[in-house]
Amino acid sequence: MRFQCAVASLQETVATVIRALNVRPESPALECVLIETTPSGIRMFCTDLSIGIESSLPATVIQEGSVILPGKLFADIVRKLPADIVHFHSADDQRTTIRCGGSRTVMKGFPSNIYPQLPQIPENITISIPQKRLRSMIQKTIFSIAADETRPILTGALLEIEPTGLTMVALDGFRLAISRTHLQTNQNEAHAVIPGKALAELLHIIEDKDDVIDLSLNDKYAAFTLASTQFITRLLEGEFMRYRQILPTEHTTRAVVPKHAFADSIARASLIALEGKNNLVRIQIEKDILTLTSNSDNNQIEEIIQPVEIDGKSLEIAFNVKYLTDINRVIEDDTYQMLFQTPISPCVFKPIEGDAFLFLVLPVRVVPVLT
Amino acid sequence: MRFQCAVASLQETVATVIRALNVRPESPALECVLIETTPSGIRMFCTDLSIGIESSLPATVIQEGSVILPGKLFADIVRKLPADIVHFHSADDQRTTIRCGGSRTVMKGFPSNIYPQLPQIPENITISIPQKRLRSMIQKTIFSIAADETRPILTGALLEIEPTGLTMVALDGFRLAISRTHLQTNQNEAHAVIPGKALAELLHIIEDKDDVIDLSLNDKYAAFTLASTQFITRLLEGEFMRYRQILPTEHTTRAVVPKHAFADSIARASLIALEGKNNLVRIQIEKDILTLTSNSDNNQIEEIIQPVEIDGKSLEIAFNVKYLTDINRVIEDDTYQMLFQTPISPCVFKPIEGDAFLFLVLPVRVVPVLT
Repeated sequence: MRFQCAVASLQETVATVIRALNVRPESPALECVLIETTPSGIRMFCTDLSIGIESSLPATVIQEGSVILPGKLFADIVRKLPADIVHFHSADDQRTTIRCGGSRTVMKGFPSNIYPQLPQIPENITISIPQKRLRSMIQKTIFSIAADETRPILTGALLEIEPTGLTMVALDGFRLAISRTHLQTNQNEAHAVIPGKALAELLHIIEDKDDVIDLSLNDKYAAFTLASTQFITRLLEGEFMRYRQILPTEHTTRAVVPKHAFADSIARASLIALEGKNNLVRIQIEKDILTLTSNSDNNQIEEIIQPVEIDGKSLEIAFNVKYLTDINRVIEDDTYQMLFQTPISPCVFKPIEGDAFLFLVLPVRVVPVLT
Repeated sequence: MRFQCAVASLQETVATVIRALNVRPESPALECVLIETTPSGIRMFCTDLSIGIESSLPATVIQEGSVILPGKLFADIVRKLPADIVHFHSADDQRTTIRCGGSRTVMKGFPSNIYPQLPQIPENITISIPQKRLRSMIQKTIFSIAADETRPILTGALLEIEPTGLTMVALDGFRLAISRTHLQTNQNEAHAVIPGKALAELLHIIEDKDDVIDLSLNDKYAAFTLASTQFITRLLEGEFMRYRQILPTEHTTRAVVPKHAFADSIARASLIALEGKNNLVRIQIEKDILTLTSNSDNNQIEEIIQPVEIDGKSLEIAFNVKYLTDINRVIEDDTYQMLFQTPISPCVFKPIEGDAFLFLVLPVRVVPVLT
């Protein structure tokens, strides 16, 4: 196997596929990245058996072939090569030479037939979506994916496909996040549960731009295809929680929250809440004032946001401050609504208009403070 | 105690003094930062008993006084305050209220008389030096300060004061770094050994600009004074190593090294050297070619730099790659000289002209490779 290519495209391709490299592989082959010639250049592929990333680059192929190389070392070497043409040669015993300018690295490679292959995804469902919209959907739900494995299905996010849009849902028992995008999918209803780890890696690959990404699904796998890169992930098996039945339909108090002031106040209150190790922030809603307070053994903080548009009854309620921080980090709108029923009912966060997101957070029941 | 001041200057001052905060204090008071009124505003002071930083800011003092507050929490709160006027009030029981916009934090403070005081430094030796020159001297020596405590005096850098300049020296048994700056000090010869930890913190405070910093010394302490900030450190006690007698006076081979190409080659070679866990890079000098090689069990790299101006005998020598990396990171010159005697004698790194720096590195004695 022998080819030549520009350093920059090799660097970009390696950096992309290497994201699927297993940090603690079950077999030595999984420490590797696959490099093989194609009719139009080079294909690289990396997998940890749960996700796989393949990407292609143009190259002048002098001799066809394939090899697998230790992935981290190969990526580190390539990243530091001088801006020049790379001369890549892998001998029959997989001894591989990478020449570039005055630099020559010889690495021990291994035969590519021991490397796991990508499953072929039959394209019975294929949807095109602008990258930035998929990116936003993932960002608005990924933080609510369950971290513990008690209910494995909740370590992923539910993707619901309808003829007119996509919905992504994640929940961890204390909070729920829904993100929607309206889109002509030309598909019947379908759904899949995508592992949280795959979504986290996908966020590193998709960019905040309008270029589309193609999503294909079958029963076991989802594939996301960009220009020269394909990202494949196994799906989680099992039934996702029926989340619609836990969404409140009524409220007794509604506050229109100025996002930036609220986020800043939460950031300050969280310092005391975290120092106190109770992680609690209390919210008091009365007239046109929203007050946040947090306490630790020795210190306390009070944040007053005024005027706030408030309809309905006065209310005092407490939350895990981390949940409020997470929500405020992903909401892009300058204002949004918080809908309350009682101090022990879930609180709903929604846009002023539309249904682009819905967050639901369980409050913490607290004993009134004696002061 | 009561004062008002602008958030921005409070934030800047707290961020400066907090660098002296002890992360694992021996007494609870050392978790704190001291705040006291002065005739012109506020003085803040923080110390871990080894170094101390004080800084002042303008403020409207309404009631004189002083308090100590938990340093990390106070700094975190102040950093997140909205851009506004801060109203600071500390009651007689040290209960302290920090108001700013709609934010009000109440912290438990402690009486300031339990806080350690700064020593007064009699200014028998005072030198003014542009910050960027002191910064460069520290950067060029700090990496050679001994990390282990076997010989405590080597965990600091020697500062030598002469009428015409300053010299800083650090060595750890395997390498030595000297940095010189020419300067009318108007001082007789003197010297002090400054702890490495103090120099590391000082690097965070002094900037890469021409504004001067004043250095004062006595037997036990050094003080560095900038506009509104004073940094004080204890000195290390004992005699520093007589380093002059180990500097080679002759050489048999001289190479004029292109810094950037050499640094890039070392960066690549270090990947294999570190993977092989031997950390070794071999340098071969012959005709006008400088060749670097590193090996691990499975992989090897060869870097050719050509043409290189070489005088004297051919030579093969090996180094710990980390030492070469450290030196190339701090040399600013585009070219410098390496002076060799034998494969087992120390190698000297010097500027082409002048004496702004001198690095000395012991080679590693290696058995010739059979290939």
